[in-house]
Amino acid sequence: MQREQTFKLKKKPKIIGSYSIVGPKEGNGNFGDYFDYVMKNDCFGEDTFEKAERKMLETAITGVIQKAKLQPRDVDMMIAGDLLNQIISSSYAARAFQFPFLGVYGACSTMAESIAVGAVLVDGGYCDNIVCCTGSHFSTAERQYRFPLELGNQRPPTSQWTITGAGACVLSLAGEGPRVSMVTFGKVVDWGVKDVNDMGAAMAPAARDTLLSHFHNTKTTPEDYDLIVTGDLGKLGSEILIDLMEDEGITLGVNYGDCGQMYFRHDQKTLCGGSGAGCCATVFNSYIMAKLRDGQYKKVLFLPTGALLSTTSTQQGDSIPCVCHAIVVES
Amino acid sequence: MQREQTFKLKKKPKIIGSYSIVGPKEGNGNFGDYFDYVMKNDCFGEDTFEKAERKMLETAITGVIQKAKLQPRDVDMMIAGDLLNQIISSSYAARAFQFPFLGVYGACSTMAESIAVGAVLVDGGYCDNIVCCTGSHFSTAERQYRFPLELGNQRPPTSQWTITGAGACVLSLAGEGPRVSMVTFGKVVDWGVKDVNDMGAAMAPAARDTLLSHFHNTKTTPEDYDLIVTGDLGKLGSEILIDLMEDEGITLGVNYGDCGQMYFRHDQKTLCGGSGAGCCATVFNSYIMAKLRDGQYKKVLFLPTGALLSTTSTQQGDSIPCVCHAIVVES
Repeated sequence: MQREQTFKLKKKPKIIGSYSIVGPKEGNGNFGDYFDYVMKNDCFGEDTFEKAERKMLETAITGVIQKAKLQPRDVDMMIAGDLLNQIISSSYAARAFQFPFLGVYGACSTMAESIAVGAVLVDGGYCDNIVCCTGSHFSTAERQYRFPLELGNQRPPTSQWTITGAGACVLSLAGEGPRVSMVTFGKVVDWGVKDVNDMGAAMAPAARDTLLSHFHNTKTTPEDYDLIVTGDLGKLGSEILIDLMEDEGITLGVNYGDCGQMYFRHDQKTLCGGSGAGCCATVFNSYIMAKLRDGQYKKVLFLPTGALLSTTSTQQGDSIPCVCHAIVVES
Repeated sequence: MQREQTFKLKKKPKIIGSYSIVGPKEGNGNFGDYFDYVMKNDCFGEDTFEKAERKMLETAITGVIQKAKLQPRDVDMMIAGDLLNQIISSSYAARAFQFPFLGVYGACSTMAESIAVGAVLVDGGYCDNIVCCTGSHFSTAERQYRFPLELGNQRPPTSQWTITGAGACVLSLAGEGPRVSMVTFGKVVDWGVKDVNDMGAAMAPAARDTLLSHFHNTKTTPEDYDLIVTGDLGKLGSEILIDLMEDEGITLGVNYGDCGQMYFRHDQKTLCGGSGAGCCATVFNSYIMAKLRDGQYKKVLFLPTGALLSTTSTQQGDSIPCVCHAIVVES
């Protein structure tokens, strides 16, 4: 049985502003020309990487409010989350503003989760302007989830590189911008992958599940979208997703891409590509939004995945449950 | 300037079922007669405390669906969060069900945050039935946030006892039950408290902020409610809140209470009382809902607070940002 997981939004809230900030390595990648701000180094003037991550989120929020031509007092709510324990980057960033704060957690799917919730709140007439934000930092994620940075651990070929960056957007019914027409909330899917260095393989089944639900609920096919884009399945995970969908008789063609797979140039040595909540957040709020605004893309299906593990669950032998939330944005 | 933070719900979604499960110490406390299930021990048949916490959430979700006289296929969405890193208790519990999953993080305010979001989704016509759930476990919280359990660390007099328990409820427009009439999303408030053993003092200003906004936005006073109840400010924090409100010319009278302050009997030696996301979740979904259902309470303002710190933010010298989300439930 296919459950009804897709909400079709009557008023189709607009994304009236988007902002992206990244680290220097990300700025040298394939999307370098599209970001609003490229930091000179990963510390961003702070004495810890965690405070740098927080400052990126604050910068993205301040930046997106300006780009949306709003004042802080116009913002009715901030919806944000991140990868750090207790989503401290988002909560501490929220402290800097006087916005009602809705903290969410969807790991690397957070950009879509926050936009999905925000779009519903705007569509339902509960809020006028909502800021959605997320980000990640290579050095905070690496030392929280994996190994001390000082260890200089060798990375297996399936591993990905956590993006240092943050993205934010503003949802509204007023103003101009691409519209969020549908949102699909994903189920938690776990096919038993336990390798924390192979997130793409763990997350691909969640993307499959949400894609199948979305196509079924909306009676659309891949051909209905100019771009179908996952978040950070990476090179391996996105190939797995193509195979899994092929098994279901659905071909993801040249209009399918993955932000993590596309993020870096080959000589940047990131193995399977970019990852982290900031990966799709910075691509969506720069490159994808630019192409939607100039009409090159008419209809985009954005469906980042998140791996919902923790170091504790891994240490206790659990496999990796994943989720994938989808939004449709139309120019 | 007071920002409009309160949503008045036109259709007033009903809470058609509630369920609570607690550990043995909690079962011996003041609300012992009201809980649906009291575990014989804190392990609940699992080999780790984290897995026991997860099983409590699964039990609460299964239990509340039965009590609401629904089938799992009737549930459109599950909204949940908890205190563990990456909210693993909620995500892994969600894995056991085939519900679209919206992960939220508001620390000990999660019960109100999830009901607030869920009530809006039901009120707006996006979902028919939503399960909201949260919980906490003394042993998982203690060893994640504070010290190894084996250390047997002495507890300072301002400390509180994390509740081992989980609570869940079902929101719907069909069926019978008390109604959620208003929700107020809180701002992140930080008055500079750094003592992680005095959460009540850290969180009281957030409760003050949300209370002032709520009273202002809804043009209500304390006398309009049969019960105004915070989550886990504890004995000290609830007294601080009373003082802070008194300074604003608002008297919280005998109709004000705090779940943490009321949870345990004096001889149970919990110092400032109960705490944790499971604290207000189990009291709300047992005692408070029972009194609403039998008409003893006509109108309840439920506003749990959450401390949005992590061990990393504490180690880096940060103070404790807090949030407080409020819902109004009417019989």
